[in-house]
Amino acid sequence: MTPFKGLVAFPITPMDADGKVDLAALRALVRRLTEAGVDAIGLLGSTGSYPYLSRDERRRAIAAALSETGGRTPVIAGVGALRTDETVRLTRDARAEGAAGGLLAPVSYTPLTDEEVFAHFAAVSAACDLPICIYNNPSTTHFTFSDELIGRLSALDHVIAVKNPAPAADTASAAIAALRGRAPAGFSVGYSADWGCAEALIAGADAWYSVVAGLFPAVALDITRAVARGDVAAARAADARLAPLWTLFKAFGGLRVMYAAANLTGLCAAAPPLPILPLAGEARRQVEAALHDLGLIA
Amino acid sequence: MTPFKGLVAFPITPMDADGKVDLAALRALVRRLTEAGVDAIGLLGSTGSYPYLSRDERRRAIAAALSETGGRTPVIAGVGALRTDETVRLTRDARAEGAAGGLLAPVSYTPLTDEEVFAHFAAVSAACDLPICIYNNPSTTHFTFSDELIGRLSALDHVIAVKNPAPAADTASAAIAALRGRAPAGFSVGYSADWGCAEALIAGADAWYSVVAGLFPAVALDITRAVARGDVAAARAADARLAPLWTLFKAFGGLRVMYAAANLTGLCAAAPPLPILPLAGEARRQVEAALHDLGLIA
Repeated sequence: MTPFKGLVAFPITPMDADGKVDLAALRALVRRLTEAGVDAIGLLGSTGSYPYLSRDERRRAIAAALSETGGRTPVIAGVGALRTDETVRLTRDARAEGAAGGLLAPVSYTPLTDEEVFAHFAAVSAACDLPICIYNNPSTTHFTFSDELIGRLSALDHVIAVKNPAPAADTASAAIAALRGRAPAGFSVGYSADWGCAEALIAGADAWYSVVAGLFPAVALDITRAVARGDVAAARAADARLAPLWTLFKAFGGLRVMYAAANLTGLCAAAPPLPILPLAGEARRQVEAALHDLGLIA
Repeated sequence: MTPFKGLVAFPITPMDADGKVDLAALRALVRRLTEAGVDAIGLLGSTGSYPYLSRDERRRAIAAALSETGGRTPVIAGVGALRTDETVRLTRDARAEGAAGGLLAPVSYTPLTDEEVFAHFAAVSAACDLPICIYNNPSTTHFTFSDELIGRLSALDHVIAVKNPAPAADTASAAIAALRGRAPAGFSVGYSADWGCAEALIAGADAWYSVVAGLFPAVALDITRAVARGDVAAARAADARLAPLWTLFKAFGGLRVMYAAANLTGLCAAAPPLPILPLAGEARRQVEAALHDLGLIA
């Protein structure tokens, strides 16, 4: 069973100012997702601030999440790092703790070439049998995977999925078909950037890697379940209802919006790692108003 | 005396596959720069792979370089990191070891806002009195400083210089004038991206943050000394002579070219940190041919 399927919910990682994870708060977020019935939990994704956490803290977070799910919901974990050797260590940590898969982004400082990214993935693939999802997130990694490179990587052992930025609605079918043409049968094609994912799912994508679902799983499940039962109109209506949130995600970044939302719901008191600042003033009021209008806070 | 002036030479940081700095090799590179008479050494810059090194290794590298220069040449050190608290620690380390200044790049994963970068610099400025150069390197940090933000930052204590990407030749004078109009008198305006720096110096820039000078200081000093004596034609001729190197820098990145060059000169045997790959095959042969034609290797 692939863990890279359906609704994968990405919670924030509550932590203190020194980058120490608040395990009780994290467990509460994970419990909420497991109880809601998401298909998988995307721990330590970009919204989970993984590059800002030490190896020890990342391992503690995975252990706490797995202890909370008790096997009811697969946990996949971000394993990316700037150095290849550290990436291998993090992948082995995730495997040792019992994660069902790893999300591997080519974190960069010096811009990387295709050959470098291929060799990086090949090193991880050779070192550890954790199922890997190619994490294509150009806005944070500053590397863009071509379909051709994804195809090459899909031939590596354990590389069984890709998380791409959502395509424009009218190109989603063609984008999915192009990827399926390059990868083995069963390779999972999924998307992130929440505002484009309903159309990607309607077009046949295997997974939605969702930021909003990390805190509000029910509104995301409204979309994935409508698509699953073939009710395209209901899926689009559920997505359209969330448009005010998508606007805020685009304006402030999903991470900042979800930290503000977590605080506004009262589920945890957490701030993003500095230098990322918590939303304040008018921006925070906009998030509060949108959540209130959607019935997500009182 | 500001250390952000004249020719600032950026050596690679020779290290082993585990990221342990080869101190003997680093000292040999530093000695070569001090003996050549560069104005300052830019240790642990982007070419020095600073984000790929641990805090301990960065501190060891600074200590070794300072021990080698013995105060003859100021050493400025890259102090950037993803987290603000770690950046403060690295800046204090550089200060404690005796570095003459710090190069502060807003290393990012989650894209940063202007306010976040301002607060990041303000935290460093408040925590440590090391003279700071704003390290504006959008190709690696994925943050671009506006002139307006540089102006705001120049009002912070200890923020006394900027290292900008070199402007197009025909806009260099205007670019420098615009920055000088926003910063206090004495604020140092300098440039990197070697191929545009001769014209920036001719237009009145205070400093050239040079990759080629990190290994071949003499060919860079030919340019800076010609500019200093007002011989614009000689400066342009010395720069034009290096055009084949600039072409290779643009094609492969200065870091990869300089690692290959360091090995080709026999000065050290070092590879960049994985996932960055050493140049091989035809690319390495092109570097070898260019260095040979310039008389930089036998």
